[in-house]
Parts: sequence; C-alpha cells; structure tokens
Amino acid sequence: MNTDKNINNKFFELKQECPKTKARLGALHTDHGDIPTPIFMPVGTQGTVKALTQRDLRELDAKIILGNTYHLYLRPGNDAMSYYKGLHNFMNWDRPILTDSGGFQVFSLQELRKISETGVRFKSHIDGSMHVFTPESVVDTQRIIGSDIMMVLDECVPYPAEYEYVKESAQLSLRWAQRGREHFLKTEPLYGHKQFQFGIGQGGMFKELRIENLKGLIDVDFDGYSIGGLSVGEPTEVMYEMIDICTDVLPKDKPRYLMGVGTPENLLESISRGIDMFDCVMPTRNARNGQIFTTRGKFNIRNNKFKLCDEPIDSGVGFYTSEIYSLGYLRHLIMTDEILGLQLASMQNIAFYLWLMKTVREKIANNEFYEWKKDFLASWGAKNEDNK
Amino acid sequence: MNTDKNINNKFFELKQECPKTKARLGALHTDHGDIPTPIFMPVGTQGTVKALTQRDLRELDAKIILGNTYHLYLRPGNDAMSYYKGLHNFMNWDRPILTDSGGFQVFSLQELRKISETGVRFKSHIDGSMHVFTPESVVDTQRIIGSDIMMVLDECVPYPAEYEYVKESAQLSLRWAQRGREHFLKTEPLYGHKQFQFGIGQGGMFKELRIENLKGLIDVDFDGYSIGGLSVGEPTEVMYEMIDICTDVLPKDKPRYLMGVGTPENLLESISRGIDMFDCVMPTRNARNGQIFTTRGKFNIRNNKFKLCDEPIDSGVGFYTSEIYSLGYLRHLIMTDEILGLQLASMQNIAFYLWLMKTVREKIANNEFYEWKKDFLASWGAKNEDNK
Repeated sequence: MNTDKNINNKFFELKQECPKTKARLGALHTDHGDIPTPIFMPVGTQGTVKALTQRDLRELDAKIILGNTYHLYLRPGNDAMSYYKGLHNFMNWDRPILTDSGGFQVFSLQELRKISETGVRFKSHIDGSMHVFTPESVVDTQRIIGSDIMMVLDECVPYPAEYEYVKESAQLSLRWAQRGREHFLKTEPLYGHKQFQFGIGQGGMFKELRIENLKGLIDVDFDGYSIGGLSVGEPTEVMYEMIDICTDVLPKDKPRYLMGVGTPENLLESISRGIDMFDCVMPTRNARNGQIFTTRGKFNIRNNKFKLCDEPIDSGVGFYTSEIYSLGYLRHLIMTDEILGLQLASMQNIAFYLWLMKTVREKIANNEFYEWKKDFLASWGAKNEDNK
Repeated sequence: MNTDKNINNKFFELKQECPKTKARLGALHTDHGDIPTPIFMPVGTQGTVKALTQRDLRELDAKIILGNTYHLYLRPGNDAMSYYKGLHNFMNWDRPILTDSGGFQVFSLQELRKISETGVRFKSHIDGSMHVFTPESVVDTQRIIGSDIMMVLDECVPYPAEYEYVKESAQLSLRWAQRGREHFLKTEPLYGHKQFQFGIGQGGMFKELRIENLKGLIDVDFDGYSIGGLSVGEPTEVMYEMIDICTDVLPKDKPRYLMGVGTPENLLESISRGIDMFDCVMPTRNARNGQIFTTRGKFNIRNNKFKLCDEPIDSGVGFYTSEIYSLGYLRHLIMTDEILGLQLASMQNIAFYLWLMKTVREKIANNEFYEWKKDFLASWGAKNEDNK
C-alpha cells in the first residue's frame, strides 16, 4: 500500500531519527489531516472521549482520537453507524480516528466468549445477546465506522501464559491477520476517504515468538504495525525488552503503535525504543478518580493540602481551563462529585499527555531528546507523590 | 435602599408593563452586570451549574446564576470561601450570582434539624456534624460568599399544613426577616461590590397569611421580594392564585422572585401574574434523566424513535451544540451513560429556558406577550409527549 507513491502521498513519512536512541520524528497523512508522531491518541470508546466535548478536543489540539469497535458495534450498532454515514459524522469530529478491532474487549469478556479458527463468538455485556467477530467482519464493521486507521482481529493473550499456548495463539492471530488483510484489499471505503489497516504483533513475553509473529505480519504488508499484548501485568522492564525486540524487526518506513500503554514514563521509554503511536485510558480514567498529571508532577487532587490552594491547575500545558481554574476549585468539584470536576480533570490530563508528546517532538527535532528525557524523568518522577 | 437614587443607580428598573397581563419588562443593575427581567437563573448548587463549564454558561448567555448557601457553607466551607475571596473568584464567574439562605435545604433535612426562635440547628447530610443557621449567620455567610443578591433565612412550610402552624411559622419567618435585614444593614460587603437582600414571603396556601406576611416584609423594606413555599405539591391553580395575590400586594418598583419554579408553562403563567425572576433545577436535573426541552416540545431522548434521527437537537435555541449534534447522537450518549450526554442535554435545556425568557422579553417589549403566550402554550404543549 502507498509505498510506491511519492513522499507527499505516503501514509507515513519518517522525518528524523534521534542519534542517541531509537526515537523517530514522523507524520501520518490521512484524508482527515496529518498526524505528527510520536503521538498520543485520547480514547473515545463509545464515540466520545469521556467528559470532553469535541470542541475541547480540538482546542486541546488532539490530532487523532480512538474509537472502540466492540462498543460501537453494540451501541449504536452497525445499522445506526451506517445511517449516520460513519463515526466522524455521527460524533462531529473531522480529524482522524483510529479504531481497534474489538478483539481486546471481546477477550476481556472471559466467560462470555468462545474462540475458533473462524473467529470469536461472544455474549454482549449489555444484554447477553450472542455475536460473532471474524477477521472479515471486523473489517466490514470498521468500514462502516469509517475510521482512518483500522486494526485486524487478534487474540490478546493474558499474562502469564504458557509458551505453547502463546505460540498457537500468535499463529492463529497471524492467520486472522492474513484473512483480514485479504478482506481489506477486496473491499472499499464507504465514505470517500482513505482507510489504512494495521497488523498487530503478539507473542506474549517470548522473544522468538514476537519476532516470528512480526515477520509473518511484515510479509502480509500492512500500512502500519501495532504491538499488542503488552502492559498486561508483566514487569515494566520485560515490556521494554519486548518493545526493543519488536522495533528492531519492524520496517523503518511504517508507523509503530504500542496499544494501551501507558504512564508518561512508559511513553518516553517506548519512544526511545522506536514507538510512534500510543493510546491509553489512563489520563481520562485517572482524572475521574482525582489523579491529576501536571508539569509539576502527578498527585491526587483530593489531598487536603489543596483545600486552600489558589494556584492554577497547571500553567505549563497551555490550556485555558488549567490556567483559569485553581487546584482548590478542582478539589472542591471532585470532593462534591460534580461533573465539572471530571471535565476539568480530564482536560488537564489530556492536555498534559498532548503537551508531553509535543515536547518530545520538539526535542527529537532539535536532537535534544536523549538528554531532555533523562532530565525530565528524573525531575518529574521525583515530584510525584506515588512514583510507581 | 437605592430607591432615593436616580434611575441609573437604581437596583431595579421597571421598563414596561404588559397592557393585557401583569407581565413586566425590567432590569436589575448589579456591580457584576445588568440582568434583564423576566429572567431564569440556572442553579449552580455547589459552585457549578451541573455539567456546564462557566464558558458554556457565558456562551448560553446566562445573565445570573444561583448558588446554594447550605451546600457552600458545608463544602468548601466559609474558611475556604473566605480564602478564595468569594464565589465569583472561586468559580471564575464574573456575572451576577444570587444565593438562597440555606433555609430551604435545612428544612428538607426533616429528622436532622431543630427549629427555635434563635434559628435552626441541623445535622450535616455529609458527615453528621452539628451546625446552626441564624438570621444573622446566613447574612454573614452570604457576605463571605459575596453573592450579588442574598436571601433571608425563612422556614419553608410543607404542603399540606394546618392554618395555625402556617401562621406561626410565617410570623417566625417575618421576625427572622427583620433580624436578617437589621444585620445586613449593620454589615458591609467584603469584596468591594454591592450586595442586595430579598425578603421571602411565606403563608402556605392561605391568602390572608400571604398578604399579612408580605405587608410585614414590605414594611421592613427589602431590595426585592421572593415568594417562597410554592410548588411544594399544591395544585397548579392554587399556586397561580397565590402568586396573583402576592403580586397584587408587592410594590411595583421592586423585583419579584418566585423560588424554585418550574416548568416552561409555570414560568409563562407566573410572568403573566407579575413575576420577574425564576430559578429551578428542572432543566439541568431533567437533562440528566434524558428529558429534553426543545422549541418543538419536550420529550425523553431515550425513546427508540430517536435512534435513527439525524435532525439537530434543536436548531431553534441558537446554541452551537444543539445545532451541530443530532438527536440520534444525544440519544446514544444518554443510553451509554456518557458524560457528554449530560453535558449536551444540560446545554440544550438551559438554552431552551433562556431562549424562552429572551422571547418573553421581546414579546413584552412589542406588546405581543398575551397573544404569543396563548399560541405558544397551545402549540408547544400539544407537541409534548407528557403534557403534565
């Protein structure tokens, strides 16, 4: 796909590489706009990034957001999504959208799903109705959603897992990826804008399985490659090791997306290891629990010390609500379970994550990434209440 | 107060009277800006109008909002409110604020409060701690909050209630009003802007008690007069009758505020009877339950007929979210318990209430209020699913 076109029409453009780490500066070009990388993608599970309006997201300068195929397939459902001519139109968002395949959610259902060569049969968590996802059907659903970037169906293996199980699972995921790619190439976008498809590497915490699986995916030739099945409970160092192994195998001219990760530290360390794209519910979910990420560290806003505190939430991230509202007001809103508390905390945390990625891009561009990352992690981490 | 100053310095300015009803066009002048009347005041119980940012409120063109003294006294508390130099500064809102006295909430506590000549002793619904509100202390608390318009402490009588009980209660409320006014006149605003104080008429559903009580309050000479103790379960016609009796007694040169009322129909009928100011949790609370007020009627957005409906939420109220988001998207958000659903529904309902009041003011100004009201109620009411 696209690799034979000139650079301006290329989906992924590699602009610069860090001389001291594997960090990369790049850009994804989609019909809904360009996405500079490294990038963090706020998660909009059910067609909304929780507690934010689409205008907030635009003002926060989110370049791309996520949608979850499993949730959107169940509600509003493919009939509705088709009626509304896709998710962009449905939710009033004209920038890029990436969707997962729904596999991750289905496999989280545990008792409610049954896997076979064909695909996965599962029970809706909402009404108990039975459904089947196949490598082909998730492509069709993502055609109906109209995401700019779609994912193949894969099995996300739990941690820890036996070698044999992980091996067989990764082989099944690879066969599904082949079928998914075939179906993708046989079908067309429905709404006039281009769609791209990523394969997802699996293989648990076994180096050779990771490598073997990725090589199989590379042979299929996707528009980009995701790394799945990490941050599932393994030690952080093991995760970093797996990422390093994967990015050594992956082609330089394709984007790399680490799914569902993670903390600010995880992002910086993964960027160092050559990752371009991230998504995680952490900034929004933790916001709703009162955990605030700021340029001066992360903390829980419920702490009594913020009761009398008229400092701005964070004057460092360049977002208006974080500048005009005080930590004391935010604490009051969270303590009284006010919806505005969820809104302001979510805005702050997304602002922080996007600020972090923007700063990373500037530092890579100026060849300062390695030193800056070391300093930032030392000073930012030291300021956190809970440095886990 | 203020009545001896020239018209530009007057707190309340009566601009026009409807020739066919008792409706009035006017304006309240405060140091935080002018408030055209009739006006609806969105309720911001705990220093936030639920699910709306202050920027939303400004863009909705809310001219004044409410705060609840009981809730703000408990959280963040007077120490915090004093530290933040009042509610305007705390919540970043530079337009007028009106606060109730806290009496209504305290009397809703039922088992948790004890009344005496001095005031009312009550148990916090949050932590069970004991507190006392007196006519003087609620003035002090509202000085600390810094509301532009404050209320006296009163006892809100339940419905139905015996004549003797209502009579004694209304007399107690009047004595409290006298003490509250005295304390108000002996104390000063804390933050450099003027504050005004309203008396609250009580008397249940007994005409002569209502009249007697209001005459007592008028003798005290407040900046405005509220009508309390209505919309507490009595038939709507009885409420309208009481309002009519009250506005016949009240001076024309002072604003009249009907507390805690009500439906769009209630507002129009009360304006016809000479009311200038309203507050009610209905638009925001009902929004959170999925009930939407629009220019084409009110309905519950959960109804299946909105599943496939790409009409705007309401193109008639002139608010951007109601124009760009569809009923189908709003339904999806409410069905999936998404916070954005609460936000969009709250914006719509507040937009509708403010649109209604703006339209009323235009109609009074053009001497078209009487005819317009008749037509509107006939056509709007007919379009409602639930016309109670």
